[in-house]
Amino acid sequence: MKSVNLKDMERIDQLFSTDVKIIQNKDVFSYSIDSVLLARFPKFPSRGLIVDLCSGNGAVGLFASTKTRAKIVEIELQERLAEMAQRSILLNGLEKQVTMINDDLKNLLNYVSRSQVDLILCNPPYFKATNTSKKNLSEHYLLARHEITTNLTEICEVSRHALKSNGRLALVHRPDRFLEILETLKAHNLAPKRVQFVHPKAGKEANMLLIEAIKDGSIEGLKILPPLIVHEDNGDYTKEIFEIYYGQ
Amino acid sequence: MKSVNLKDMERIDQLFSTDVKIIQNKDVFSYSIDSVLLARFPKFPSRGLIVDLCSGNGAVGLFASTKTRAKIVEIELQERLAEMAQRSILLNGLEKQVTMINDDLKNLLNYVSRSQVDLILCNPPYFKATNTSKKNLSEHYLLARHEITTNLTEICEVSRHALKSNGRLALVHRPDRFLEILETLKAHNLAPKRVQFVHPKAGKEANMLLIEAIKDGSIEGLKILPPLIVHEDNGDYTKEIFEIYYGQ
Repeated sequence: MKSVNLKDMERIDQLFSTDVKIIQNKDVFSYSIDSVLLARFPKFPSRGLIVDLCSGNGAVGLFASTKTRAKIVEIELQERLAEMAQRSILLNGLEKQVTMINDDLKNLLNYVSRSQVDLILCNPPYFKATNTSKKNLSEHYLLARHEITTNLTEICEVSRHALKSNGRLALVHRPDRFLEILETLKAHNLAPKRVQFVHPKAGKEANMLLIEAIKDGSIEGLKILPPLIVHEDNGDYTKEIFEIYYGQ
Repeated sequence: MKSVNLKDMERIDQLFSTDVKIIQNKDVFSYSIDSVLLARFPKFPSRGLIVDLCSGNGAVGLFASTKTRAKIVEIELQERLAEMAQRSILLNGLEKQVTMINDDLKNLLNYVSRSQVDLILCNPPYFKATNTSKKNLSEHYLLARHEITTNLTEICEVSRHALKSNGRLALVHRPDRFLEILETLKAHNLAPKRVQFVHPKAGKEANMLLIEAIKDGSIEGLKILPPLIVHEDNGDYTKEIFEIYYGQ
């Protein structure tokens, strides 16, 4: 265990199922279940190159490091978050596997070669930018949640150029934008192959979805995976989610 | 209870949750869980006009009669199935509410006026017609299961013309054709609003989907309903499916 300096209001959280430790600051940014589920969703290559777009404080890429020996490049626009992620990489001794780039994701091809990436992970801003977006949010959360500095089209455009043919893009997003997600993927020659819906409870509508698309894949053969139910009726985590957080 | 003549190999099955009785013949055609789930899925108008396309032995329309006072028109190409359905209508004393038409669905507008239908239900052939389609199937099952005499595009085309603006099309179909279904609906100005995936067991991929689309609706606001799980791990029906079959 390395030691790192924590800034004011920061704390270290651990995802016990992976032993990965993440520097968090609730006033700035904290990862949530979305990142945990995204990091276990795709079919990981055992080696090669993985990119995490919109990586925030680095949680998705750090969790993913436990699933693969591939190199992982994280890219995050916000300097404050990228710097937290960099310290988390050091905290976990992962500096040989995981690299953090503090830049706009549209500049990704300045750092990785075109058509060389095996897998792209992305937990993007979910909400369209509107005039009311700015209420009650710090600037850090605002940029992480609303499509102000990037959007779905740009993410798919960058992914199409960076991915190998048959490389995969895995996204977490919201069901109310599912049709738009499918159309945007298709417009960028990314064929959806696996979808998993996440429901807060067994009898509730989905409030999250995970989707994996293959560059240059055929339109046929979409699989709808078993649903993920987060909470029992009494509010406890379901067994499946508990194991994702704490291991078996 | 009216009496009707049963032909050789026919029997009367009852959906106990509705009291509806259906004349079945396993050598010719029997309704299955697909029809039962479709008939409970859409938001039913209390009055008006409902059409059941590809109605087979009439099960979907007969079950639907218990949910609404709307007139229900069933249309089925195969004379043998349409004739069974007609006797089931009489058996249930529903001849004032339910009408069976023995014709190709592409002729629907010969029987109902354009843009006058509130809801269309359809349990269509699931499989594309291929050279191997004909193996091991009676002609009746062949036409019911494979896109030989109709297909998804034709069903959406007929629905677009028959439905009122804001009328609804409810389909049951297979997840491996989900992307094609969405594209075909969109091409016919039918906007998906509610989707429910059906999984054979909790840990299994979906093998059926229910989808409701609104004519002239906006692309936004898709809802993914709670998943329907058919069987417990031990093979019994889940409580939810048991109640759909047998009532509470």
